[in-house]
Amino acid sequence: MSDLLHEEEIGQWRRTHYSSEINSSLEDREVIIMGWVSSKRDHGNIQFIIIRDRYGDIQVMAKKSECSKRLFGQLQQIKEHTSLAIRGTVRPQEKAPSGVEIIPLELKAFSIARKAAPFMMQSKTSIGIDTRLDLRAIDLRRNILQSIFHIRYTVLNASREFLARQGFIEVNTPKMIATATEGGAALFPIFYYDREAFLAQSPQLYKEQLTMAFESVFEIGPIFRAEPSRTNRHLSEAISIDIEKAFVDYNDVMSLLERMILHVLDSVKEKNKNDLAYLEFQLPNIELPFARYSYSDLIEQLQGGGERIRWGDDLSPQAMKNLPDDRMNGFYFITDWPTSIKPFYVKPKFVPESGRVSESFDLMYGPLEISSGSTRVNRKDELLERMKKQGLNTQAFDYHLKVFDYGVPPHAGFGVGLERLIMAITKIDNIRDASLYPRDIDRLSP
Amino acid sequence: MSDLLHEEEIGQWRRTHYSSEINSSLEDREVIIMGWVSSKRDHGNIQFIIIRDRYGDIQVMAKKSECSKRLFGQLQQIKEHTSLAIRGTVRPQEKAPSGVEIIPLELKAFSIARKAAPFMMQSKTSIGIDTRLDLRAIDLRRNILQSIFHIRYTVLNASREFLARQGFIEVNTPKMIATATEGGAALFPIFYYDREAFLAQSPQLYKEQLTMAFESVFEIGPIFRAEPSRTNRHLSEAISIDIEKAFVDYNDVMSLLERMILHVLDSVKEKNKNDLAYLEFQLPNIELPFARYSYSDLIEQLQGGGERIRWGDDLSPQAMKNLPDDRMNGFYFITDWPTSIKPFYVKPKFVPESGRVSESFDLMYGPLEISSGSTRVNRKDELLERMKKQGLNTQAFDYHLKVFDYGVPPHAGFGVGLERLIMAITKIDNIRDASLYPRDIDRLSP
Repeated sequence: MSDLLHEEEIGQWRRTHYSSEINSSLEDREVIIMGWVSSKRDHGNIQFIIIRDRYGDIQVMAKKSECSKRLFGQLQQIKEHTSLAIRGTVRPQEKAPSGVEIIPLELKAFSIARKAAPFMMQSKTSIGIDTRLDLRAIDLRRNILQSIFHIRYTVLNASREFLARQGFIEVNTPKMIATATEGGAALFPIFYYDREAFLAQSPQLYKEQLTMAFESVFEIGPIFRAEPSRTNRHLSEAISIDIEKAFVDYNDVMSLLERMILHVLDSVKEKNKNDLAYLEFQLPNIELPFARYSYSDLIEQLQGGGERIRWGDDLSPQAMKNLPDDRMNGFYFITDWPTSIKPFYVKPKFVPESGRVSESFDLMYGPLEISSGSTRVNRKDELLERMKKQGLNTQAFDYHLKVFDYGVPPHAGFGVGLERLIMAITKIDNIRDASLYPRDIDRLSP
Repeated sequence: MSDLLHEEEIGQWRRTHYSSEINSSLEDREVIIMGWVSSKRDHGNIQFIIIRDRYGDIQVMAKKSECSKRLFGQLQQIKEHTSLAIRGTVRPQEKAPSGVEIIPLELKAFSIARKAAPFMMQSKTSIGIDTRLDLRAIDLRRNILQSIFHIRYTVLNASREFLARQGFIEVNTPKMIATATEGGAALFPIFYYDREAFLAQSPQLYKEQLTMAFESVFEIGPIFRAEPSRTNRHLSEAISIDIEKAFVDYNDVMSLLERMILHVLDSVKEKNKNDLAYLEFQLPNIELPFARYSYSDLIEQLQGGGERIRWGDDLSPQAMKNLPDDRMNGFYFITDWPTSIKPFYVKPKFVPESGRVSESFDLMYGPLEISSGSTRVNRKDELLERMKKQGLNTQAFDYHLKVFDYGVPPHAGFGVGLERLIMAITKIDNIRDASLYPRDIDRLSP
């Protein structure tokens, strides 16, 4: 019996139809389906096997009386997760979800599953995330993750589409760099041949330089941060949607960002109906413009509510939760942050507060920071002054400073954390599920 | 005189028109243009200044008799590369390239150029590439590089568009990994918190795993190779267009690849007419299918021509130049490479040569390798055997091997070197000009 099922090559077999293409119009037609066994029920003389492919499920029904002994035996031996092809005939079946089922004629097992997955494939909630991440490729077969990553693809496409329409050009900047962009400590060092180098925390200085030649640029690519924190909203490697635009200020790019978010949500609503239904989640109807609160106003509100916070402190998610305003559940901006807690390239606002606050913003979703942006410093003397105030070694930035001798335009931009945006859209509470293979302080594999 | 020109904030000024939007229909209208000074001619009582923006050039003409003394003086002081805005009136001018020119009323200099660029902005050929790369942000203002990177954007869009239509989903896989994918030496090591890690040479094993859950996946992202070579066709950091597809073999993905190349070329022809004209280059009319030569046949041909090469050797660009076949100028495939010189995940071909050759291909453009692909091994025992034969430590691949217990489908894929493809399309002879900020053994900045 054990030799009934053996692994075969795909050879000349090819899928004739995806599961979603099989309906009653194909009645009595012979088809070849390919996929993996998502579930099976064996009633002795009758077996039901659900085959899943990229577009859904299709039921295979085998009666002992209608099947060759060999094929029926093969189907009995087959286990969940096995990768296979079935050649069979389409037959109407009212009880099957798609109104049809496949009566099998021949089976080819490509790769036989040898183990049972340590988690339930059909359930939304599951065991601890670490067990799932250890076997991520199988975990990703679960409906909930399929929905999340289909939505993620729409978000990427919609962002690109929106930016292309606005005249942006996509660029790729180096991820191996000589100097820390923001002088921070959260850097991964590399051995670059015989030198030390670092992984880029953001494409910041490169995208700024590129406004000189291309005016409006965007990059969607990995960023690397050696975050020491173990939270549900930080990754060591994430995808950032970065834009930079010449001849505008932070108000212009805030407007651009909220229109981009609107376009992204509209696209998800249109293209991911099934995924949203599976997640049991309706996207909010957002209205533009998003609410804008200045940092100083929020500090006053928090202080008024008894919070122990001083002007100049960062706004922690913990503190934000104590804000009374219930409008702060959706998307909103916090603007005009203290210059002292923003990076050197962020432009101080000269009126009316003489550089104490900056032309900067964060886009928030509830207590979650989705994006950060600002007008940038575009003149060399001002940039040098800002660097020195932040205690940076200006010589290390020579490669950047020297382009400021050739007419850097006024410019502004932002970076959106893709995984954070996915959290806001899908309501998942752990950022790791917005990344195919997440990286954090404890996890470097798979 | 020297204080006439000073740097100003953008404030409430915004561009009303791009250069390309200014034509005779706007006669006598007041406009604000923004950009940088691409060239100027001063005839004493009359000055011509060419302002360039993202979409082209527009001429500003100032007569001493028509201009305020202050404005005329400012225009005299302004240097090439200065970033500025000019408010002015549109006037017909037959001699100007666009049929109109701007009569200036007011000028705002945003950032005054202080140096002359060490290369000619208008010329196609230029000084040594290192001088240009040292000041890359300015170099990228040159027409020839503008054309290359506009074409590059089309190539990216057309590739994504083609793959989306074929049902592929875009993914992002980690660039920081625990194990060398191909066991090779050309890896950049990283300090990952307290551990050693590496930068990914390719998304190979991840994209293969993802066929289990998504069937057809692609990734466009950076790859990292610590190439010791100083050639005109290697980069240490490049962009790879990687695809992987379930339930097909290498013939299917070769067909997919040539159709993708055709779609890319058609898109460039349609969308980059001006860029191609500037490069003085007509894209070839390619025909499908591309020629396919087996590795063994080429070795025989080379040996017949007196080349000292043995079956099992790699095909160097040097050796390839000695092939008589003049069809080898365009795109063609070399198929069925020796298993011994391909990575462990490449599937040996069992008939008729008993695993000596593999189900593999390279896509070539003349002597330049553009892409490499194959059917992959999809069964654990076979993969383990291949790893051992190549002397790999199989334990280091546990995270990968264990997914093979859960039904890995038959699959095939390829990776296209984006910069190599750009070389083929634009006929540039140094790969560094297909990268915004190239990285090689000698260059880590800017």
